Amino acid sequence: MKKIVLTGAAGRLGSYLREPLSKMCDTLLSTDIVDDIGTLYEGETFVQADLAQMDEIKPLLEGADMVVHFGAIVDEAPFEQLWGPNFVGSYNIWEAGYRHGVRRIVYASSIHAVGMYPRREFIGTDVAHRPDGFYGLAKCFTEDLGRMYWEKRGLESVHLRILSAAQVNNPRALGTWLSYDDLIQLVTRAIDTPTVGFTVAYGVSNNDRCPVDNANASFLGYRPKDNAEEFAEKVLAEAPEADPTDPAQMCHGGPFASVDLGSSGLAQMNVVDDRKKS
Amino acid sequence: MKKIVLTGAAGRLGSYLREPLSKMCDTLLSTDIVDDIGTLYEGETFVQADLAQMDEIKPLLEGADMVVHFGAIVDEAPFEQLWGPNFVGSYNIWEAGYRHGVRRIVYASSIHAVGMYPRREFIGTDVAHRPDGFYGLAKCFTEDLGRMYWEKRGLESVHLRILSAAQVNNPRALGTWLSYDDLIQLVTRAIDTPTVGFTVAYGVSNNDRCPVDNANASFLGYRPKDNAEEFAEKVLAEAPEADPTDPAQMCHGGPFASVDLGSSGLAQMNVVDDRKKS
Amino acid sequence: MKKIVLTGAAGRLGSYLREPLSKMCDTLLSTDIVDDIGTLYEGETFVQADLAQMDEIKPLLEGADMVVHFGAIVDEAPFEQLWGPNFVGSYNIWEAGYRHGVRRIVYASSIHAVGMYPRREFIGTDVAHRPDGFYGLAKCFTEDLGRMYWEKRGLESVHLRILSAAQVNNPRALGTWLSYDDLIQLVTRAIDTPTVGFTVAYGVSNNDRCPVDNANASFLGYRPKDNAEEFAEKVLAEAPEADPTDPAQMCHGGPFASVDLGSSGLAQMNVVDDRKKS
Amino acid sequence: MKKIVLTGAAGRLGSYLREPLSKMCDTLLSTDIVDDIGTLYEGETFVQADLAQMDEIKPLLEGADMVVHFGAIVDEAPFEQLWGPNFVGSYNIWEAGYRHGVRRIVYASSIHAVGMYPRREFIGTDVAHRPDGFYGLAKCFTEDLGRMYWEKRGLESVHLRILSAAQVNNPRALGTWLSYDDLIQLVTRAIDTPTVGFTVAYGVSNNDRCPVDNANASFLGYRPKDNAEEFAEKVLAEAPEADPTDPAQMCHGGPFASVDLGSSGLAQMNVVDDRKKS
Amino acid sequence: MKKIVLTGAAGRLGSYLREPLSKMCDTLLSTDIVDDIGTLYEGETFVQADLAQMDEIKPLLEGADMVVHFGAIVDEAPFEQLWGPNFVGSYNIWEAGYRHGVRRIVYASSIHAVGMYPRREFIGTDVAHRPDGFYGLAKCFTEDLGRMYWEKRGLESVHLRILSAAQVNNPRALGTWLSYDDLIQLVTRAIDTPTVGFTVAYGVSNNDRCPVDNANASFLGYRPKDNAEEFAEKVLAEAPEADPTDPAQMCHGGPFASVDLGSSGLAQMNVVDDRKKS
Amino acid sequence: MKKIVLTGAAGRLGSYLREPLSKMCDTLLSTDIVDDIGTLYEGETFVQADLAQMDEIKPLLEGADMVVHFGAIVDEAPFEQLWGPNFVGSYNIWEAGYRHGVRRIVYASSIHAVGMYPRREFIGTDVAHRPDGFYGLAKCFTEDLGRMYWEKRGLESVHLRILSAAQVNNPRALGTWLSYDDLIQLVTRAIDTPTVGFTVAYGVSNNDRCPVDNANASFLGYRPKDNAEEFAEKVLAEAPEADPTDPAQMCHGGPFASVDLGSSGLAQMNVVDDRKKS
Repeated sequence: MKKIVLTGAAGRLGSYLREPLSKMCDTLLSTDIVDDIGTLYEGETFVQADLAQMDEIKPLLEGADMVVHFGAIVDEAPFEQLWGPNFVGSYNIWEAGYRHGVRRIVYASSIHAVGMYPRREFIGTDVAHRPDGFYGLAKCFTEDLGRMYWEKRGLESVHLRILSAAQVNNPRALGTWLSYDDLIQLVTRAIDTPTVGFTVAYGVSNNDRCPVDNANASFLGYRPKDNAEEFAEKVLAEAPEADPTDPAQMCHGGPFASVDLGSSGLAQMNVVDDRKKS
Repeated sequence: MKKIVLTGAAGRLGSYLREPLSKMCDTLLSTDIVDDIGTLYEGETFVQADLAQMDEIKPLLEGADMVVHFGAIVDEAPFEQLWGPNFVGSYNIWEAGYRHGVRRIVYASSIHAVGMYPRREFIGTDVAHRPDGFYGLAKCFTEDLGRMYWEKRGLESVHLRILSAAQVNNPRALGTWLSYDDLIQLVTRAIDTPTVGFTVAYGVSNNDRCPVDNANASFLGYRPKDNAEEFAEKVLAEAPEADPTDPAQMCHGGPFASVDLGSSGLAQMNVVDDRKKS
Repeated sequence: MKKIVLTGAAGRLGSYLREPLSKMCDTLLSTDIVDDIGTLYEGETFVQADLAQMDEIKPLLEGADMVVHFGAIVDEAPFEQLWGPNFVGSYNIWEAGYRHGVRRIVYASSIHAVGMYPRREFIGTDVAHRPDGFYGLAKCFTEDLGRMYWEKRGLESVHLRILSAAQVNNPRALGTWLSYDDLIQLVTRAIDTPTVGFTVAYGVSNNDRCPVDNANASFLGYRPKDNAEEFAEKVLAEAPEADPTDPAQMCHGGPFASVDLGSSGLAQMNVVDDRKKS
Repeated sequence: MKKIVLTGAAGRLGSYLREPLSKMCDTLLSTDIVDDIGTLYEGETFVQADLAQMDEIKPLLEGADMVVHFGAIVDEAPFEQLWGPNFVGSYNIWEAGYRHGVRRIVYASSIHAVGMYPRREFIGTDVAHRPDGFYGLAKCFTEDLGRMYWEKRGLESVHLRILSAAQVNNPRALGTWLSYDDLIQLVTRAIDTPTVGFTVAYGVSNNDRCPVDNANASFLGYRPKDNAEEFAEKVLAEAPEADPTDPAQMCHGGPFASVDLGSSGLAQMNVVDDRKKS
Repeated sequence: MKKIVLTGAAGRLGSYLREPLSKMCDTLLSTDIVDDIGTLYEGETFVQADLAQMDEIKPLLEGADMVVHFGAIVDEAPFEQLWGPNFVGSYNIWEAGYRHGVRRIVYASSIHAVGMYPRREFIGTDVAHRPDGFYGLAKCFTEDLGRMYWEKRGLESVHLRILSAAQVNNPRALGTWLSYDDLIQLVTRAIDTPTVGFTVAYGVSNNDRCPVDNANASFLGYRPKDNAEEFAEKVLAEAPEADPTDPAQMCHGGPFASVDLGSSGLAQMNVVDDRKKS
Repeated sequence: MKKIVLTGAAGRLGSYLREPLSKMCDTLLSTDIVDDIGTLYEGETFVQADLAQMDEIKPLLEGADMVVHFGAIVDEAPFEQLWGPNFVGSYNIWEAGYRHGVRRIVYASSIHAVGMYPRREFIGTDVAHRPDGFYGLAKCFTEDLGRMYWEKRGLESVHLRILSAAQVNNPRALGTWLSYDDLIQLVTRAIDTPTVGFTVAYGVSNNDRCPVDNANASFLGYRPKDNAEEFAEKVLAEAPEADPTDPAQMCHGGPFASVDLGSSGLAQMNVVDDRKKS
C-alpha cells in the first residue's frame, strides 16, 4: 500500500497506531489538531490540521489508499463543541476521501453509538442506534454516513465500536476492555481484509465478560488475545457496592448512560492514561 | 392544550397542518424562514425565524406543550446546505424544547432515512438506518437525537417517516402515497396519544401497494383511509418501461436511491404542487 | 358437542358466555364458587364447586368434550389468596380433564402474563412471559401447564390473553378493550376450530389503537368487529395529564404494571360493572 | 404488452386465466400437453407442447414479454412421473425465457413447498423450504431456480404459492381457499407491478382463517376480496371429528402432509371440479 | 459479603457448593429439610427447615446479602408432591428475601423448563418456556416469579438452567454435562458479577456437543473448562441403538421429554451418585 | 456398524474418506463412476456404478446402515449435465436408502446452496436457499429432498455444506478452507452422533476469518482444529487488488457468484489438487 492517512495521531489510541501503520505502507501521513506528535517513525510525515476545516483536510488525502480516522474530541461534550470535529470532521474525511478516490476508511466508532441498550442484551453489530450522549450521536452520524457512501458511492469503511481502551480499573471494564495489542490487530484486520463494503465491528478484547457480539463481522478474522479477567479479583474487591438501578451499571454505555447530556469531562474521570505509568 | 409550535409552516405539508393544529390548542405559533404565510387561522400567530439560529428558535418554544417540527430543506442537497436547517435545526428544536419543558416533539422524518433497503423487504419501524442521501442522513441524525433526548431526558417524540406526500403520478407512489387527510390523522394521533416515549411511524396511506410495516406503532391508532389504487390504471398505463436494475425502482427510497449524493433539485423534479391545480 | 363445562359462570365474563355456550352443546355444566347463578338457560345445569378442591372439580368433567375455564380470582391479590383458585385450580382442571378424556380447554388467560413489556413493543403470542403481579403469574403458570399437557399428553388448549373486558373509561382501554360480542366470537372460534394444539391468542377488539399482535393465531379466524375508537374523543378529553415515567402508562399491563405486588382491590378500582348500568 | 405465454392452459386454474390474460396483451399464446383447449379468446392462439421437451417449448417463448407458467402435473405423484413436466419443465421455461429475453415469469408454486410447517406457525414468504412430497419438492426446485435466474441473470419471477383453489368442502379450506376472482387479481398484480425481482406470495383469499403471512409481498398490492367464512357453518357441521395427532390437520400442507410420498391420486380425492357443477 | 444462605445444602449439588460459598462471606447459613449435613466448614452454620413453611424460612434470610437457592425435590414427581417445596418454596424464598432486603437470589433452574424444544434448535436463554414435566413447570414458575420480583421490586436473580450435573454415562450427557468445577465457577460468577438484574444462564460445561446458547448471559463471564468429549468413545460404544422417534433422544429435556408426567423416580434411574465412587 | 456405502469414492474428498470410514464399519462399500479406485483398505469393496441409474445404485445399499454420499459432478456445469448425477443421483440414493431401511445419509452439500448471500451476513444453517449456479441448485434440491424424507419417512440425513476443501491460495479461502483432518472429523461426527434427524452443518475449518455460523448444529460436536490464518500473510501479499463491486469477492459463493450459469470448468480453475504435491 502506498499511503495511509491517520487522523488523531496525537491521541491516546492514535499514538499507539502510528508505528504499526507506518509499517503497512510506503507513506503514513499523520495528522492532528496539535502541532507536534514527537519523533516520527520511518515513512511517517506529520501535518497539523483541523478536521472541521475541509480546506485543511482535503489536501492531505490526495493519493491515499486508506484513511484511519481516529481524530475527534474523545469525551461527552456539548453539541456545539462536537459539531465541528466529530460531525463535520467525519463528513470532511468521507467527502475528501471520495473526491480523491480513497478506497477505504477505518473509523474509531464507539459503544456509545448503542450505549443505551441494556447490558443484558448481547447486542450484535446490526442493532438500531441508541446513543447515550452527543459523543455517541456523532458516532451514529458517522456510521450512517459511512453506510451511505458505501451504498451510493462504493467507498468502503469499517467502523470499530471501541468499548473501552483504557486501564481496567472498574468492574465494567472487565467486560469492555480493549488492549492495545488487540486494538492493533483489529485495525490491521480492518485494513488487510480484501473487501469489506460497510462493516461494523466491536473493539473489545477476548474478555470472559465481553458483553457484545461480533459474529456478523466474523469474516474480518479479528480474534483478540487479551483477557481482562486477570484483573478481576483486584477490581471486584475494590469496587464500591453495585446499584442495579443505575443506568451506568446496567447499560452498555456505562457512565455515559447516566451522565447529563453534553457534560464535558466524563472521559477524564474514567480514564487514567496508563502510558504515563509504565 | 395551551400552545403548539409548528415549524415549516409555509411548506407544502406545514401549510396543510396549520388549520387542524390551530383547533387543537389555545395558541398555535407558526414559524418559517419565509416572512409571510398568508392569512392566519383563529388562535394562530406567526413568527419568522431561521431554524439554524438558536437565538431565534429558543424564545418561540417558551410555554409550548408540543412542537410539530416540519421545517427543513425538503430535498436532497449538498451537506453544506442541509447542515444548518436540517441538522443544527433539529438540535435547536430539541435542546430549546428541553430547556422550556416541552412535552413532545412530532417530527417530519422520511422514508429516506431507510431508503436503501430493497423494496422487497417489508421494513418495520425498528430496522437500522440506511439513508439514501444527505437529506435522509439528516432524518437519521434527528431520529437518533430524539431517541437520546427521550432516554436521557424524558422528552417524548414521534418520528413520522413520510413516504411521499405528493400527487400520485408514478408507479412508486401507488405504494408510497400519503394523502393530506391521512397526514392530518397521523399528526393528530401523534399528538393525542397520551404517552409515546420515542416512537417511529411510517407516514403512508392505506394503499394496496404499501411497502412498509407500521405494526410496532399500532398503539398510536393511526388507521389511514385513502388508497392510491384509484390512480393505478392511469399511472401504470402512462409509466415508462420498468427497469429492475435501477435502484430507484427497487429500493424504498425511490429516485433518491439512485441520484447522486447532494444533487439539489430532486424533489422538484418529482413533485408537482397540486394545490395550484385545484 | 355433548357437554361443555364452564367455570367461573357467575363472574362478569362467565355470565356473558353462558347463553352462547348453552347453544353449542347438549349440556352446559356451569360451575362457580358462589351458590347461585340465577335462571338457567336451556340445557344448562349448575353445580357449586371450589376450583381448589380436586374432589369437587373432578366429577364435573366426566363426559365433557371441552372446558371453558374462566373461574379464578380476577384481581391482583396476595399469592396466598390466589394459590388455591388460580394455581391449584388450573392444575385441577387440566388433570381432571386429562383423566376424563376431555378434548380441549379454553382458558381465560390475561395480558398480565406479559404485562411488563413496554407498550411500544407490538408483542406477539410467543414472547417469553413477563408477569406484572401474582395474578399474571398464575396466567403464566397455567399457560406453561397447558403447553405441557398438550406436548406430553395431547390435551389441547387455547389461552385467551384478555386485555380488558370492561367499560372504556380511560385512554389505555382505547387500545385494550374487548367487547362482549368479540369475547363471544373469540370463545366460539376457540371451540369450533377443528384442531388447535396449544394456542395463545390475545382477547382484544378491533380497536384502532390495539397494541398486540395476534398473527400467530390467525388460523383461528378470530376477526373482532368492535372498535373502542368511538369512545376516544370523550375519554381523551376527560383523561388526566399523561406521565411517560409511569409504568402504568408505558407497559402493556397498565395499572397492574405499577401497583404493588399482591395488592388486592386493583381490578375493582379500574372496572365498573356496566351490566348494572344498562 | 405484446405477448404473454400461458402454460397449463387446459388445466383447472389455467382455463380461468385465459380470458383475463388475453385482455392484457396483443397475443396470448396458450399451450398445454392436451391437444385442444376449446374456443379461443380474441388474441389467443394455442399450441400443443410438452413442457419436458425443450425443442417444443423454446420456440413458443420467442418475442414473449412474460410467461404465466401454470403447466405441471397437479398432484402428488412418483418422482419419475413429475421429473419431466414439473422439474425439467420449469428449467425449460426459465432457460428458454432467458434465451429469448423474456422479462418475467409468473409461476404457480404451492403451499406444498412449505407444507410440513405446523399450521400454528403463521409462516411468511421467506421461511426455508419444507416440502411435503415430490409435488412440493418440484415447487421448491422451481423457486430456487427462479431466485437464481434473477440473481445471476436478471430474469424476474413471481412465485404464487397457491394454498387451495378448489371448492370449500373441508375445514382446512376455510383457511386455505383461493377464489377464482382472487386468483385472477393475484396474477394480474404479479404482471402489472412494474418491478418485482424475485418475489414469493401466497395465493389465498381474504379468509378469516388464513394461516399464512403475505406481508413481505405487500408491495404487489394483492388485496383479496373473497372469504371462505361464508361456508364455515356448513363445512364445520359436516366435518368428521378432528384429530390433533394427524399431520394432515396440524400442518400447512393438509392431506399432503400425511400421505405417502409419491402416492398419485391425492388431489383428485380432495378436489371436486366445481366448474362442472355450475 | 456478610451472609449467604444456601438452601438444599444436603443435596448432591448443594453439598459441593458449601465449601466455596463459605469462603465468599463471613457467614454461610446452610439449610435443608434433612437434619444433618455433616461437619461444617469455617463460617458455616446449619439450620434445618422446610422450604414450604414460610415461618421456618423467613427468619433464616434476615441480614442475608444473597441466597443460593438449590433446595427442591430434584426429580419429576406428581404435582401434589412438588407443590410445597418446588413452588411454594420458591415463593417463600423470594418473598422472605424481599422482606429482608436480600440483594440477589441465585437459583438452580433446569433445562427442563425448556425441555420440549427439539435438540436441533440451539436454544438461547430467552425462548418461551416449554416444560417437560411438573419438575420443569416449577422451574418455569420460579423464573417468571424471579423476573417479576426484579421488574416490580428490584430484587435481582440469576437462574442457572442446569443441563445435567451427573456422571457422563449416556450419549445425551456428552452434550449436557456440567462438571462440579464448572458448577462452582458458574455460581461464583452469578454472585460476583456486580449487577445482574434478571438473568438466565445455562449450566453446562465446555462440551464439544453442547446444545444450548449462553450468549445472552455473556456479561457474566462464565467460561466453563471441562469437556465431556473425553468420555465420548466409551459412552458411544456402550450406547444402545439410537431411536430418532423417541422424544428422549430428540428433545433438550432428554428422558424427561418422554416420561409420563408426574412419574417419580426418574432422576434416580439416570443419575449415579459419583461421590460414593470416589 | 455393519456397512457403510461411500459414493464418489474416487473423488478428491471421497478418496480421503475411504480409510477412516473403513475403520468405522465391518464393510465399506465404495462406489464411483470410474472403474478403479486403487488399492482397497481392509474391509473395503468397490463397485463401479452410475448414480443416475437406479438399477445400478439400489442393489449397493442393501443391508447398509448409512450412506456417505459424496458422488456428483463437482463443478458448475450446464443443467443437462448435472441432471443425472447431481439431481437424479440424489433421489436414487434416498429412495434406495429408504427401500433398504438405511438409517442415515451423510451428504456433501455445499456453500453454493446459499452462495448468493452477501459475505457480510454471518449466515446460519437455516437461511432460505440462494444458489449461485446449477451446481448449487442441485445441493438445494438434495437438502430439500433430505428434509422431506426425514419428515415424511424418518430417514435421517446430515448435509455438510462444504465451503472449500482445497489449497488455500486466495484470500477467500482464508475464511472458507476445510482441511482434510477437519473434513474427517466432521464426517465422523455426522456418523457417530446418535440421532440427527435432518441437520445442516457448514464444512469449514477453525479459520479466524470463517464467515458462516454453525451454532444450530452445535449438538453434533464438530470442533474443527485447523486454521487457514497460517497462510494469510503469503496469500494476502500475492493477491491482486480487491474489487468490492465483484460478487465473487462479496458473496459467500465466491467465484461461483459471478460466473455465468452452467459454465463448466470453474472448479478446475480454482482448485489445485494438492494430493499430487505431497
